[in-house]
Amino acid sequence: MRAVVLNTGTELLLGDVRDAHLSFIAHEILSLGLRIDEQRTVPDGPLIRSALEELLPQTAILFVTGGLGPTTDDITRDMVADLLGLKLQQDPELLASLQLRLKTRHVRWTSRIARQADVPAGARILPNENGSAPGLYLNANINSRIPSPHLFLLPGPPRELQPMFRSHVMSILRSVVQVPRSDRRIYKIAGVGESIVEEAVGEKILAIPGIELGYCARPGEVDLRIIGEPGAIARADSIVQKELGSRIFTARGEALEEVLVKLLTERKQTISVAESCTGGLLANRLTNVSGSSAIFIAGYVAYANQAKIGMLGLDSKVIEKHGAVSEAAARALAEAARGHSGSTYGLSTTGIAGPTGGSAEKPVGTVFVGLAAPDETVVKKLFFPSDRETFKQIVAQAAFELLRRKLVDDQSSKSQAPNPRETSNHNT
Amino acid sequence: MRAVVLNTGTELLLGDVRDAHLSFIAHEILSLGLRIDEQRTVPDGPLIRSALEELLPQTAILFVTGGLGPTTDDITRDMVADLLGLKLQQDPELLASLQLRLKTRHVRWTSRIARQADVPAGARILPNENGSAPGLYLNANINSRIPSPHLFLLPGPPRELQPMFRSHVMSILRSVVQVPRSDRRIYKIAGVGESIVEEAVGEKILAIPGIELGYCARPGEVDLRIIGEPGAIARADSIVQKELGSRIFTARGEALEEVLVKLLTERKQTISVAESCTGGLLANRLTNVSGSSAIFIAGYVAYANQAKIGMLGLDSKVIEKHGAVSEAAARALAEAARGHSGSTYGLSTTGIAGPTGGSAEKPVGTVFVGLAAPDETVVKKLFFPSDRETFKQIVAQAAFELLRRKLVDDQSSKSQAPNPRETSNHNT
Repeated sequence: MRAVVLNTGTELLLGDVRDAHLSFIAHEILSLGLRIDEQRTVPDGPLIRSALEELLPQTAILFVTGGLGPTTDDITRDMVADLLGLKLQQDPELLASLQLRLKTRHVRWTSRIARQADVPAGARILPNENGSAPGLYLNANINSRIPSPHLFLLPGPPRELQPMFRSHVMSILRSVVQVPRSDRRIYKIAGVGESIVEEAVGEKILAIPGIELGYCARPGEVDLRIIGEPGAIARADSIVQKELGSRIFTARGEALEEVLVKLLTERKQTISVAESCTGGLLANRLTNVSGSSAIFIAGYVAYANQAKIGMLGLDSKVIEKHGAVSEAAARALAEAARGHSGSTYGLSTTGIAGPTGGSAEKPVGTVFVGLAAPDETVVKKLFFPSDRETFKQIVAQAAFELLRRKLVDDQSSKSQAPNPRETSNHNT
Repeated sequence: MRAVVLNTGTELLLGDVRDAHLSFIAHEILSLGLRIDEQRTVPDGPLIRSALEELLPQTAILFVTGGLGPTTDDITRDMVADLLGLKLQQDPELLASLQLRLKTRHVRWTSRIARQADVPAGARILPNENGSAPGLYLNANINSRIPSPHLFLLPGPPRELQPMFRSHVMSILRSVVQVPRSDRRIYKIAGVGESIVEEAVGEKILAIPGIELGYCARPGEVDLRIIGEPGAIARADSIVQKELGSRIFTARGEALEEVLVKLLTERKQTISVAESCTGGLLANRLTNVSGSSAIFIAGYVAYANQAKIGMLGLDSKVIEKHGAVSEAAARALAEAARGHSGSTYGLSTTGIAGPTGGSAEKPVGTVFVGLAAPDETVVKKLFFPSDRETFKQIVAQAAFELLRRKLVDDQSSKSQAPNPRETSNHNT
């Protein structure tokens, strides 16, 4: 079944807004075995018509985003009705709910707004819980004289489209899609290069018939993607688990900070961070996770040396002797973050993001990440020459992975620690 | 001149990577009066061919991204050569530079890599300073028997494409593009709704012939966009300046944090932040700006109450009496950030991001932002019910705008302050 996404919106082609719909829709529909075969972006206005004319007869499922609002350039609804020979009819229930919505929000009613209650004959209304423009679903070949796909007209703002897609579009798709079921797994691995991952599992997985294998390198992370029918996925999964094991931080699409919040919450432990070169990114990423307030105590963003000394009580001699970018400074920062806040762990970063500030001994890209735990403090020296934001991302990933490995290793050594009494009991 | 972007890459259609090329290219070429008229995404493989077959004869400028690498699914180069009837020839200089690149990086040479030195006859090589695959430029109608556009084959990774585009593609475009010059201005305004901006300038600007007007609402920010020939832009600009004036934080495309770093650097002033509900986002955004180390002293991410008290020496009675989300707490946090770090300004946030933690008196979305300056401390109470990440973005924008207004107002009251002696001098 050929599925296409058609994005409408001049702001997308001017580069002022970046599309978020393609990746969202693609991820949602993969569980149905569906894929997007092509995506197009056209400006608001008459070019939508020519794109629709071309796509309607050659597509099985078509998602059109944008152009459903109240302004004069919102013409998707009218064009679709016209092309498919369907009358636009005002839906009284929809009109009433629009009027109520505006009244509650003290927004003045205008005749333009009423256009959003116009519905092509036979179309099904997809309620919009986060905006005024409803979505519309038109069955395949809704006008028996004109070939057309299952057609979904969806609102432009992601905050409106996404809940509507999950609540209403997916259930319709489930009833109309008939393709062999296929699954996808994405394994995320931090702090290891793409080539290492490929070497570990590539050939073995490709030997499984019907498996599609892909890699995606991100700052400080590699995503390993396998797609195939459930039996093949299970075989590939056992290879991945055997070869990569605990190096995988998730197979459920979570970000590394989400995994950390979950692990710390389970263990009833807490964390504080002392950041120099990541400048607040560790704290920001952790606090993006809902529920992080239970495990995140404090973040110290000590950018200037005076701040490292002042806010964390760092010994100024450490910085004088070893420099602010040093193993000693990373150790002191991590321990101070832990000590000052009373959290279980302290995580630190200090490095040279560049473009200036490097030296022959410590070139731009040099970085130390430190972890203070109840039983030990460890520091890793790394080297990531890169642009400023990528550098921050890679360092954050390395610091988070340092903590994750500690949490996972502590857990597994605990559960594997031999208990002499139990062992002898089993032997009797 | 019809310009089209064709993105190739299965990872885009699977939703694993979000396209960054369209917005980048669209922004770059607008200074030449060029716009992207359509964009398409197709998977790696034979579908690239049908998209090219359709687009080559009906396009004046075509940008193709991706598919130039060494692996078997990188077939853009071969397909273009085949469709345009051009021979692929190995370029010896390119081959030598590839071999050198791999040697320096200790990467093993394989025959696949050599494919990247194949060039369609007559094409111009666009050097890649950040990767191995070079870009290619094929003049319009390069094979006089087959109609074709100015064709740019560009690498997939943004870090490779973007410098190549700026260094090599733009100069070629300048020599081939012949369209009436048009300009664009984007005015960014924080803390004001879209409808307020439209009311202030909408009708007046639309009365100017040949002006295209657009709005883009982002979290805590509205972008006002005008496009037209330089004379019309100048007229619109004077309307915008008169009606919105210092409410505009930039007309140069900068982010609000970049404006702040510039203003503070000019004034040789410094800032520290004490964040509760923004959880490190203020610090992270400020330290994303190159040069921020001169003005950013310290960030305190005081998520737990114990951290607010412990790290900033906040009076625990303030929290007991007024609550951690209160005007008094915002004031104390801002003043503590300023006092502890010795910076010129202290900026604070405290609020209820949700989804839990709200009450009848202080519902989810309630937030206080505070600014401690040398002469006064001000606190603003705001209400932004929203999802977690949007909430953080809007609050950060409000806090930054509070500081920017202070900086701008102080400056203008200084320069407008009447100097009695000068005034009388002028009168004589």
